Amino acid sequence: MARDAWRLKVANVTSWHRSDRSFGRRRRRLTRVARVEEPVAIELRRLRDSIDNMDAALVHLLAERFKITKEVGELKRRHGLPPADPAREAQQIARLRSLASEAKLDPEFAEKFLTFVVAEVVRHHEAALGSTRSAG
Amino acid sequence: MARDAWRLKVANVTSWHRSDRSFGRRRRRLTRVARVEEPVAIELRRLRDSIDNMDAALVHLLAERFKITKEVGELKRRHGLPPADPAREAQQIARLRSLASEAKLDPEFAEKFLTFVVAEVVRHHEAALGSTRSAG
Repeated sequence: MARDAWRLKVANVTSWHRSDRSFGRRRRRLTRVARVEEPVAIELRRLRDSIDNMDAALVHLLAERFKITKEVGELKRRHGLPPADPAREAQQIARLRSLASEAKLDPEFAEKFLTFVVAEVVRHHEAALGSTRSAG
Repeated sequence: MARDAWRLKVANVTSWHRSDRSFGRRRRRLTRVARVEEPVAIELRRLRDSIDNMDAALVHLLAERFKITKEVGELKRRHGLPPADPAREAQQIARLRSLASEAKLDPEFAEKFLTFVVAEVVRHHEAALGSTRSAG
Protein backbone atom coordinates (compact mmCIF):
# COMPACT_ATOMS: atom_id res chain seq x y z
CA MET A 1 0.00 0.00 0.00
CA ALA A 2 2.84 2.36 0.88
CA ARG A 3 4.34 1.59 -2.50
CA ASP A 4 1.01 2.22 -4.22
CA ALA A 5 0.62 5.53 -2.42
CA TRP A 6 4.07 6.56 -3.60
CA ARG A 7 3.29 5.45 -7.13
CA LEU A 8 0.12 7.56 -7.13
CA LYS A 9 2.09 10.50 -5.79
CA VAL A 10 4.55 10.08 -8.61
CA ALA A 11 1.71 9.80 -11.12
CA ASN A 12 0.49 13.14 -9.87
CA VAL A 13 3.93 14.71 -10.04
CA THR A 14 4.70 13.37 -13.49
CA SER A 15 1.49 14.74 -14.90
CA TRP A 16 2.97 18.20 -14.27
CA HIS A 17 6.63 17.42 -14.92
CA ARG A 18 6.50 15.00 -17.79
CA SER A 19 9.89 16.14 -19.07
CA ASP A 20 13.33 14.61 -19.54
CA ARG A 21 14.53 16.32 -16.37
CA SER A 22 16.64 13.93 -14.37
CA PHE A 23 15.17 12.91 -11.04
CA GLY A 24 17.73 10.18 -10.39
CA ARG A 25 17.56 6.48 -11.05
CA ARG A 26 14.84 5.63 -8.46
CA ARG A 27 12.57 8.43 -9.59
CA ARG A 28 12.97 7.49 -13.29
CA ARG A 29 12.07 3.88 -12.59
CA LEU A 30 8.97 4.89 -10.68
CA THR A 31 8.03 7.38 -13.37
CA ARG A 32 8.09 4.66 -16.03
CA VAL A 33 5.66 2.60 -13.94
CA ALA A 34 3.54 5.66 -13.28
CA ARG A 35 3.28 6.56 -16.98
CA VAL A 36 1.52 3.31 -17.77
CA GLU A 37 -0.92 3.51 -14.86
CA GLU A 38 -1.18 7.25 -14.54
CA PRO A 39 -4.72 8.11 -15.73
CA VAL A 40 -6.29 5.08 -14.05
CA ALA A 41 -4.33 5.60 -10.85
CA ILE A 42 -5.31 9.26 -10.74
CA GLU A 43 -8.97 8.45 -11.35
CA LEU A 44 -8.94 5.71 -8.70
CA ARG A 45 -7.29 8.09 -6.23
CA ARG A 46 -9.92 10.75 -6.98
CA LEU A 47 -12.80 8.32 -6.38
CA ARG A 48 -11.20 6.93 -3.23
CA ASP A 49 -10.62 10.42 -1.86
CA SER A 50 -14.37 11.02 -2.20
CA ILE A 51 -15.16 7.72 -0.50
CA ASP A 52 -12.79 8.64 2.33
CA ASN A 53 -14.43 12.05 2.71
CA MET A 54 -17.86 10.46 2.88
CA ASP A 55 -16.71 7.83 5.35
CA ALA A 56 -15.36 10.56 7.61
CA ALA A 57 -18.71 12.37 7.39
CA LEU A 58 -20.59 9.13 8.09
CA VAL A 59 -18.46 8.38 11.16
CA HIS A 60 -18.96 11.88 12.54
CA LEU A 61 -22.71 11.76 11.94
CA LEU A 62 -22.90 8.38 13.63
CA ALA A 63 -20.95 9.76 16.60
CA GLU A 64 -23.52 12.56 16.96
CA ARG A 65 -26.39 10.12 16.50
CA PHE A 66 -25.13 7.97 19.37
CA LYS A 67 -24.86 11.02 21.60
CA ILE A 68 -28.54 11.69 20.99
CA THR A 69 -29.74 8.11 21.41
CA LYS A 70 -27.84 8.12 24.71
CA GLU A 71 -29.87 11.19 25.73
CA VAL A 72 -33.07 9.45 24.63
CA GLY A 73 -32.17 6.41 26.74
CA GLU A 74 -31.49 8.57 29.78
CA LEU A 75 -34.70 10.56 29.31
CA LYS A 76 -36.76 7.38 29.09
CA ARG A 77 -35.04 5.88 32.10
CA ARG A 78 -35.58 9.02 34.22
CA HIS A 79 -39.29 9.15 33.38
CA GLY A 80 -39.98 5.43 33.49
CA LEU A 81 -40.84 5.25 29.79
CA PRO A 82 -40.58 1.84 28.10
CA PRO A 83 -37.23 1.58 26.32
CA ALA A 84 -38.70 -0.12 23.24
CA ASP A 85 -41.12 1.72 20.96
CA PRO A 86 -42.13 -0.56 18.07
CA ALA A 87 -44.37 2.12 16.53
CA ARG A 88 -41.48 4.58 16.42
CA GLU A 89 -39.20 1.94 14.90
CA ALA A 90 -41.78 1.07 12.23
CA GLN A 91 -42.12 4.76 11.41
CA GLN A 92 -38.33 5.17 11.16
CA ILE A 93 -38.02 2.17 8.83
CA ALA A 94 -40.83 3.38 6.56
CA ARG A 95 -39.34 6.86 6.39
CA LEU A 96 -35.79 5.67 5.66
CA ARG A 97 -37.02 3.28 2.97
CA SER A 98 -38.85 6.14 1.32
CA LEU A 99 -35.85 8.49 1.55
CA ALA A 100 -33.61 5.75 0.16
CA SER A 101 -35.89 5.23 -2.84
CA GLU A 102 -35.81 8.94 -3.61
CA ALA A 103 -32.00 8.92 -3.34
CA LYS A 104 -31.74 5.82 -5.59
CA LEU A 105 -30.43 3.73 -2.71
CA ASP A 106 -31.75 0.19 -2.25
CA PRO A 107 -34.54 0.51 0.39
CA GLU A 108 -33.63 -2.96 1.66
CA PHE A 109 -30.17 -1.68 2.42
CA ALA A 110 -31.55 1.41 4.19
CA GLU A 111 -33.64 -0.85 6.40
CA LYS A 112 -30.68 -3.17 7.08
CA PHE A 113 -28.60 -0.10 7.90
CA LEU A 114 -31.12 1.18 10.45
CA THR A 115 -31.39 -2.29 11.99
CA PHE A 116 -27.61 -2.42 12.21
CA VAL A 117 -27.39 0.98 13.92
CA VAL A 118 -30.31 0.24 16.27
CA ALA A 119 -28.64 -3.02 17.30
CA GLU A 120 -25.61 -0.98 18.31
CA VAL A 121 -27.79 1.50 20.20
CA VAL A 122 -29.36 -1.43 22.05
CA ARG A 123 -25.90 -2.77 22.85
CA HIS A 124 -24.87 0.64 24.23
CA HIS A 125 -28.02 0.90 26.33
CA GLU A 126 -27.62 -2.59 27.66
CA ALA A 127 -24.02 -1.93 28.55
CA ALA A 128 -24.89 1.37 30.22
CA LEU A 129 -28.17 0.62 31.93
CA GLY A 130 -28.57 -3.09 32.46
CA SER A 131 -30.94 -4.59 29.93
CA THR A 132 -33.04 -1.89 28.33
CA ARG A 133 -33.84 -1.38 24.67
CA SER A 134 -34.46 1.75 22.65
CA ALA A 135 -34.18 2.67 19.02
CA GLY A 136 -34.11 6.35 19.94
CA MET B 1 -48.27 6.25 16.83
CA ALA B 2 -50.84 8.55 15.21
CA ARG B 3 -52.27 9.14 18.66
CA ASP B 4 -48.82 9.87 20.07
CA ALA B 5 -48.14 12.32 17.27
CA TRP B 6 -51.37 14.11 18.04
CA ARG B 7 -50.57 14.15 21.75
CA LEU B 8 -47.20 15.73 21.02
CA LYS B 9 -48.87 18.30 18.80
CA VAL B 10 -51.22 19.15 21.63
CA ALA B 11 -48.32 19.33 24.07
CA ASN B 12 -46.76 21.89 21.78
CA VAL B 13 -49.96 23.87 21.47
CA THR B 14 -50.67 23.87 25.20
CA SER B 15 -47.21 25.11 26.00
CA TRP B 16 -48.27 28.34 24.31
CA HIS B 17 -51.97 28.33 25.19
CA ARG B 18 -51.96 26.95 28.72
CA SER B 19 -55.11 28.87 29.60
CA ASP B 20 -58.66 28.06 30.58
CA ARG B 21 -59.82 28.75 27.04
CA SER B 22 -62.33 26.15 25.97
CA PHE B 23 -61.19 23.91 23.13
CA GLY B 24 -64.14 21.47 23.41
CA ARG B 25 -64.40 18.19 25.24
CA ARG B 26 -61.96 16.21 23.07
CA ARG B 27 -59.32 18.90 23.17
CA ARG B 28 -59.64 19.28 26.97
CA ARG B 29 -59.21 15.57 27.52
CA LEU B 30 -56.12 15.48 25.34
CA THR B 31 -54.78 18.58 27.03
CA ARG B 32 -55.01 16.91 30.45
CA VAL B 33 -52.93 14.00 29.15
CA ALA B 34 -50.52 16.36 27.49
CA ARG B 35 -49.99 18.42 30.67
CA VAL B 36 -48.59 15.44 32.50
CA GLU B 37 -46.31 14.34 29.66
CA GLU B 38 -45.68 17.68 28.06
CA PRO B 39 -42.04 18.47 28.89
CA VAL B 40 -40.87 14.89 28.42
CA ALA B 41 -42.84 14.50 25.19
CA ILE B 42 -41.45 17.74 23.83
CA GLU B 43 -37.90 16.77 24.75
CA LEU B 44 -38.31 13.31 23.24
CA ARG B 45 -39.73 14.84 20.06
CA ARG B 46 -36.81 17.27 19.88
CA LEU B 47 -34.24 14.48 20.22
CA ARG B 48 -36.05 12.26 17.73
CA ASP B 49 -36.25 15.09 15.21
CA SER B 50 -32.46 15.34 15.39
CA ILE B 51 -32.09 11.57 14.97
CA ASP B 52 -34.39 11.71 11.96
CA ASN B 53 -32.38 14.55 10.42
CA MET B 54 -29.16 12.61 10.91
CA ASP B 55 -30.66 9.43 9.50
CA ALA B 56 -31.73 11.33 6.39
CA ALA B 57 -28.20 12.70 6.03
CA LEU B 58 -26.72 9.22 6.55
CA VAL B 59 -28.98 7.69 3.90
CA HIS B 60 -28.11 10.39 1.38
CA LEU B 61 -24.39 10.05 2.07
CA LEU B 62 -24.63 6.29 1.67
CA ALA B 63 -26.47 6.76 -1.63
CA GLU B 64 -23.59 8.93 -2.89
CA ARG B 65 -21.01 6.49 -1.54
CA PHE B 66 -22.58 3.64 -3.50
CA LYS B 67 -22.54 5.72 -6.66
CA ILE B 68 -18.80 6.12 -6.24
CA THR B 69 -18.03 2.51 -5.36
CA LYS B 70 -19.97 1.59 -8.49
CA GLU B 71 -17.63 3.85 -10.48
CA VAL B 72 -14.63 2.23 -8.77
CA GLY B 73 -15.92 -1.21 -9.69
CA GLU B 74 -16.40 -0.20 -13.32
CA LEU B 75 -12.96 1.45 -13.51
CA LYS B 76 -11.29 -1.68 -12.12
CA ARG B 77 -13.22 -3.92 -14.47
CA ARG B 78 -12.35 -1.79 -17.54
CA HIS B 79 -8.65 -1.82 -16.71
CA GLY B 80 -8.38 -5.38 -15.49
CA LEU B 81 -7.49 -4.36 -11.95
CA PRO B 82 -8.13 -6.89 -9.19
CA PRO B 83 -11.46 -6.12 -7.52
CA ALA B 84 -10.18 -6.81 -4.00
CA ASP B 85 -7.52 -4.60 -2.44
CA PRO B 86 -6.72 -5.83 1.08
CA ALA B 87 -4.15 -3.07 1.64
CA ARG B 88 -6.71 -0.39 0.80
CA GLU B 89 -9.25 -2.03 3.12
CA ALA B 90 -6.74 -2.20 5.98
CA GLN B 91 -5.94 1.47 5.46
CA GLN B 92 -9.65 2.39 5.46
CA ILE B 93 -10.24 0.47 8.69
CA ALA B 94 -7.26 2.06 10.45
CA ARG B 95 -8.34 5.53 9.34
CA LEU B 96 -11.97 5.10 10.39
CA ARG B 97 -10.98 3.69 13.76
CA SER B 98 -8.78 6.71 14.33
CA LEU B 99 -11.50 9.16 13.22
CA ALA B 100 -14.01 7.36 15.45
CA SER B 101 -11.75 7.67 18.48
CA GLU B 102 -11.38 11.39 17.89
CA ALA B 103 -15.17 11.72 17.56
CA LYS B 104 -15.76 9.67 20.74
CA LEU B 105 -17.36 6.87 18.75
CA ASP B 106 -16.47 3.27 19.60
CA PRO B 107 -13.72 2.30 17.10
CA GLU B 108 -15.04 -1.25 17.12
CA PHE B 109 -18.35 0.08 15.87
CA ALA B 110 -16.66 2.15 13.16
CA GLU B 111 -14.90 -0.98 11.93
CA LYS B 112 -18.12 -3.02 12.04
CA PHE B 113 -19.84 -0.22 10.15
CA LEU B 114 -17.24 -0.21 7.37
CA THR B 115 -17.41 -4.00 7.16
CA PHE B 116 -21.19 -3.76 6.90
CA VAL B 117 -21.04 -1.19 4.11
CA VAL B 118 -18.27 -3.03 2.25
CA ALA B 119 -20.33 -6.24 2.38
CA GLU B 120 -23.12 -4.34 0.65
CA VAL B 121 -20.70 -2.97 -1.94
CA VAL B 122 -19.52 -6.52 -2.61
CA ARG B 123 -23.13 -7.65 -2.94
CA HIS B 124 -23.78 -4.84 -5.47
CA HIS B 125 -20.67 -5.72 -7.45
CA GLU B 126 -21.50 -9.40 -7.48
CA ALA B 127 -25.02 -8.66 -8.63
CA ALA B 128 -23.78 -6.29 -11.34
CA LEU B 129 -20.61 -7.97 -12.57
CA GLY B 130 -20.65 -11.64 -11.74
CA SER B 131 -18.41 -12.41 -8.78
CA THR B 132 -16.03 -9.54 -8.20
CA ARG B 133 -15.11 -7.90 -4.94
CA SER B 134 -14.12 -4.33 -4.15
CA ALA B 135 -14.24 -2.17 -1.09
CA GLY B 136 -13.92 0.93 -3.25
